[in-house]
Amino acid sequence: MGKITGNIVVGQSGGPTAAINSSLAGVYKAGKEAGADKVYGMLNGIQGLLKGKLIDLSEKITCDLELELLKRTPAAYLGSCRYKLPDHEKDTAPYEQLFQILKAHEIEVFLYIGGNDSMDSIRKLSEYGELVNSSIKFIGIPKTVDNDLEITDHTPGYGSAAKFIAAATKEIIRDSLVYDQNNLTIIEIMGRHAGWLTAAAALCKDKDCQGPDRIYLPEKNFDKDIFLKDIKALQQEKKSVVIAVSEGIHLADGRFVCELSDKDSYIDEFGHTMLTGAGAYLAALVKKELNCKTRAIELNTLQRCASHLASLSDITEAFEAGRAGVMAAARGITGVMAVIKRVSDSPYQCAYETHNIKQIANMEKKVPLSWIKEGDDGLTEEFIQYARPLIMGEVMPIMVNGLPAHMDNIK
Amino acid sequence: MGKITGNIVVGQSGGPTAAINSSLAGVYKAGKEAGADKVYGMLNGIQGLLKGKLIDLSEKITCDLELELLKRTPAAYLGSCRYKLPDHEKDTAPYEQLFQILKAHEIEVFLYIGGNDSMDSIRKLSEYGELVNSSIKFIGIPKTVDNDLEITDHTPGYGSAAKFIAAATKEIIRDSLVYDQNNLTIIEIMGRHAGWLTAAAALCKDKDCQGPDRIYLPEKNFDKDIFLKDIKALQQEKKSVVIAVSEGIHLADGRFVCELSDKDSYIDEFGHTMLTGAGAYLAALVKKELNCKTRAIELNTLQRCASHLASLSDITEAFEAGRAGVMAAARGITGVMAVIKRVSDSPYQCAYETHNIKQIANMEKKVPLSWIKEGDDGLTEEFIQYARPLIMGEVMPIMVNGLPAHMDNIK
Repeated sequence: MGKITGNIVVGQSGGPTAAINSSLAGVYKAGKEAGADKVYGMLNGIQGLLKGKLIDLSEKITCDLELELLKRTPAAYLGSCRYKLPDHEKDTAPYEQLFQILKAHEIEVFLYIGGNDSMDSIRKLSEYGELVNSSIKFIGIPKTVDNDLEITDHTPGYGSAAKFIAAATKEIIRDSLVYDQNNLTIIEIMGRHAGWLTAAAALCKDKDCQGPDRIYLPEKNFDKDIFLKDIKALQQEKKSVVIAVSEGIHLADGRFVCELSDKDSYIDEFGHTMLTGAGAYLAALVKKELNCKTRAIELNTLQRCASHLASLSDITEAFEAGRAGVMAAARGITGVMAVIKRVSDSPYQCAYETHNIKQIANMEKKVPLSWIKEGDDGLTEEFIQYARPLIMGEVMPIMVNGLPAHMDNIK
Repeated sequence: MGKITGNIVVGQSGGPTAAINSSLAGVYKAGKEAGADKVYGMLNGIQGLLKGKLIDLSEKITCDLELELLKRTPAAYLGSCRYKLPDHEKDTAPYEQLFQILKAHEIEVFLYIGGNDSMDSIRKLSEYGELVNSSIKFIGIPKTVDNDLEITDHTPGYGSAAKFIAAATKEIIRDSLVYDQNNLTIIEIMGRHAGWLTAAAALCKDKDCQGPDRIYLPEKNFDKDIFLKDIKALQQEKKSVVIAVSEGIHLADGRFVCELSDKDSYIDEFGHTMLTGAGAYLAALVKKELNCKTRAIELNTLQRCASHLASLSDITEAFEAGRAGVMAAARGITGVMAVIKRVSDSPYQCAYETHNIKQIANMEKKVPLSWIKEGDDGLTEEFIQYARPLIMGEVMPIMVNGLPAHMDNIK
């Protein structure tokens, strides 16, 4: 194992997950083990760093119990941001400012835990670093519930979200079966362009659960007429129909289904259309066209923060991914993201490597079309075999006063 | 302990909960112990019973492991209904039919696990039974996430719902703190007229969590102008504001806040207005008036079916309430509901009794106004002391393939 002689700074960026703090814990632990003098946390990512907002993590994580508590705390302990670095060709000012701050704090390693946009920041920073002959190592640690990062087998954060989604879907299906009348339940699940989270609803199909009757992913075009015909046919077979839809399902012409409703959609800082309401729209449509009892359920924020039902696989791998990033930096590597490589399915085994960030940033990995069953009545065995190990195992919350204890945010 | 010489029939009615099956397990276990020959389950409550849909529960619950699995299964294992018995003065037909079916199955005890409407059914059945000199004992077992039944200290089902709501609120507050910008999160929680469920959000306030900034219950009139002024003032103190609102909050003139939105509300079989959208309406209002980032989160169905985070207090008490109902019947009592009586707060201890159903049916117990803090910034210590024991302890799900196992529905 290489050594780190200077300091480390680590930040969290993008949407919160149940596992991002476990990666932070992994970075801290490995950083200390690798000999780093200080492991700084930047508050609210690069946005905070630009304002000089750094804390010495040793002052916050004073024992292994606190490290365990951090691993069990959802959202982003250091705070997050959705700051987009400009291209350095167009504007070097923030780069110069950042590198000055890094120099002032004797930073040898810069780690950024995040998704696609965060990996783009690592790409830009490492390119600029190369340009100015900086010796700072820039490393990305993957984190996104969306599981849409390339090269890595899967992303930390996905497994816990998938476990919550599958468990919630199972409980909602159970709930839907109680009345002896025709009813349709539409569960709306996160996923703008990639259907990984929605696909996770398929994991609840087992001896004790029928699973969702249909699963609609954004990887395929959605057709309203076929949908209505399909639901009508299903309702002739069974009284309670439960379907899972991704928030990002869209028509062949590219319009999102949620845009068909009268709810306002809006554009976020990265130019992504914020989606809401596909489930509500379809529930209203079915009610109108087929005149049956319908309800739309958004699993919403809990998908990314329900650490009370985190996956042990996920929390462990998030920790190891953080550690792998530090170890790569200690070996002098820069401009990479830590990646999880699946070594075998049975037994499920993974190794941790790094990969050139340029081949990851700004790419989007989607669910292979061959894994989506014809007729949208589920995912193939290939998907189940891929996703099942990611939801295995539980991380017991530390229960205090009847509720999971968290590391409180930095004030 | 008295003896039961004939058979028992038990049904489930009204909305599902995480604890209703534990009461069913308690009825089954106590019924067998009291000597009942058969414990029948009616499928889909009285509605199914009228069609002669009964099953012998011994064929389904064949060992203690299955009993444990049943206790951990959300929703209603026997299926539910929202059937309203007519007054027997107006229409004796369903009564005659029911009593014939009960006679044919040599039923000595009729137990109905449910909420307000179900207790009204028990009242009507016991009154008719008295009228026709029937020896059948009619017993209600309380079950409702709403906690709005009179006489009983609290209702089975409430504790698990409260635990999920408090944990989810804590996780959502954590999630809301990650961005360094003004934002308002509105968590919409179930509760038509009684605010018990929404009040449970207050339980997450602890050393590691600030708790919701405001909690709006239907026990008090809601004033839009005061609300907006209050949110504005809060936002000057802190960036992330989180509030909890009951779906049933209403203006002084009686209109529900959700009715102010353009979403359709509709009337259910009991004439209750189905509520949805108070949170979404208020989020849109704040966005328009105060121009800040807002989001509305409905905790929806999971509040009543998230048995993966059930409260041990609740599951245990639901079981004991079922048992208490059987034991009362064995002593020859009829026309009562099993009630939980709090014996002491510290240590928390309860006893199980029965109470005349006429003093319970059609009543609604609300949160005492004295427990709601002025300014709606939380619940008093009296409420916390009342509710905390109800969310204590965990019932470990039996995890299979990474997910909680359930007793599958009867096919």
